[in-house]
Amino acid sequence: MTYCVAMSLTGGLIVAADSRTNAGVDQIATYRKLWVRQHPGERVLVVTTSGNLAISQAVMERLDKGINDKESGTLLEARSMHEAARLVGAAIRDVFKLDGEAMIREGTGFNVTLGLAGQIAGGPQSLFQLYAAGNFIEASQQTPYFLMGEVKYGKPIIDRLVRYDTSLSDAIKCVMVSMDSTIRSNISVGLPIDLAVYKKDSLKLDIQRQIDGDDPYFAKIRAGWGEGLRRAHAQLPEPDWL
Amino acid sequence: MTYCVAMSLTGGLIVAADSRTNAGVDQIATYRKLWVRQHPGERVLVVTTSGNLAISQAVMERLDKGINDKESGTLLEARSMHEAARLVGAAIRDVFKLDGEAMIREGTGFNVTLGLAGQIAGGPQSLFQLYAAGNFIEASQQTPYFLMGEVKYGKPIIDRLVRYDTSLSDAIKCVMVSMDSTIRSNISVGLPIDLAVYKKDSLKLDIQRQIDGDDPYFAKIRAGWGEGLRRAHAQLPEPDWL
Repeated sequence: MTYCVAMSLTGGLIVAADSRTNAGVDQIATYRKLWVRQHPGERVLVVTTSGNLAISQAVMERLDKGINDKESGTLLEARSMHEAARLVGAAIRDVFKLDGEAMIREGTGFNVTLGLAGQIAGGPQSLFQLYAAGNFIEASQQTPYFLMGEVKYGKPIIDRLVRYDTSLSDAIKCVMVSMDSTIRSNISVGLPIDLAVYKKDSLKLDIQRQIDGDDPYFAKIRAGWGEGLRRAHAQLPEPDWL
Repeated sequence: MTYCVAMSLTGGLIVAADSRTNAGVDQIATYRKLWVRQHPGERVLVVTTSGNLAISQAVMERLDKGINDKESGTLLEARSMHEAARLVGAAIRDVFKLDGEAMIREGTGFNVTLGLAGQIAGGPQSLFQLYAAGNFIEASQQTPYFLMGEVKYGKPIIDRLVRYDTSLSDAIKCVMVSMDSTIRSNISVGLPIDLAVYKKDSLKLDIQRQIDGDDPYFAKIRAGWGEGLRRAHAQLPEPDWL
């Protein structure tokens, strides 16, 4: 499984993904599920994937080299974020055309969800979530984030604290906490975390970090959050009816 | 869907369940999913159910009146908690014998998970989780709680804070927070919450409360936890690499 978070806030974009893949409990591996494609000064695109890794890799291959007929161009040639999202959708459908029927026959299903975040010069910063059918939705001020994969453990903290006008710094703290909670409660989600941060209109990726178990910032978040939760719990009123 | 928590701690037992049922988004109802059966001074048994409501109700009918052949006795006649757990398992299998095949044919599946907590004079306080096959596992000092139904949203806080030797009061606070987080993030889980608390060896149910939206204690927990989380978040270190 996977856990990915993608946010489009007033200050910019945040995309984070864990890197554990598993097919059963004895086929566990570490794979990057966050891809960055950019021409600094002109465009930045970040793709994150959850679901079947073979589909994700096949989609990225098509986004880099063009879909079979080449007419579609690549992610680096799309003229707008919306066109880029349509291209990702077309790539998903092209993979389905090749592999989908056999995967469904084998009982694997055709299971993938992608996030596409970025900005292309002349257009706005955008965030899309794409489904296995290749269709997609765009984030809005009311719903400024998408969670993909093993989303439930880490959702409450983001639901409570992140709004469209939350600062990048505060949102990053939330993303770290959300990742940590998910990793603690579900063994199919694991370190390292890939994190990409883009400041609106900068047209280059501002931060790209791989956060492992020995990352000092993540260690401080883990310890600080554990301590903060214990304090919050201790300060709750006792049930006086007990 | 449902969210149930059942804990067996040094101080006693805690069982909590929400009360929303839904079959699709336009068939929503409130049903109790927590049943108490007791002879004060001699036995207390608390059953909580998640999954298909028709199965749960059919199981409770058998536990109160005996399974078809009557040889099995009722929950109030079981001689030990282990015998009570076997009776619940037999009741699940009896319902399957009647309805299982048709439910599977209709695509509903035979989906139920039950918790059984209690104590019978002369025996220890016990907690079991039963599966749709009627088999079961018992809680232990290492794994002193079971979560059933829509478990993921509320699991991280319990995983972090509840141990076998956590006090009943501290554990109740955690259960309230866990329920609140689940209700906020998932519309298929809803108030009121039914809560049962049993103090070890008391042989009577000590607390049975139905907690609704206007319950003053739950309101304090909600406000206090929201405030505590915001404080914990604010105190986390800023990402200085941003």
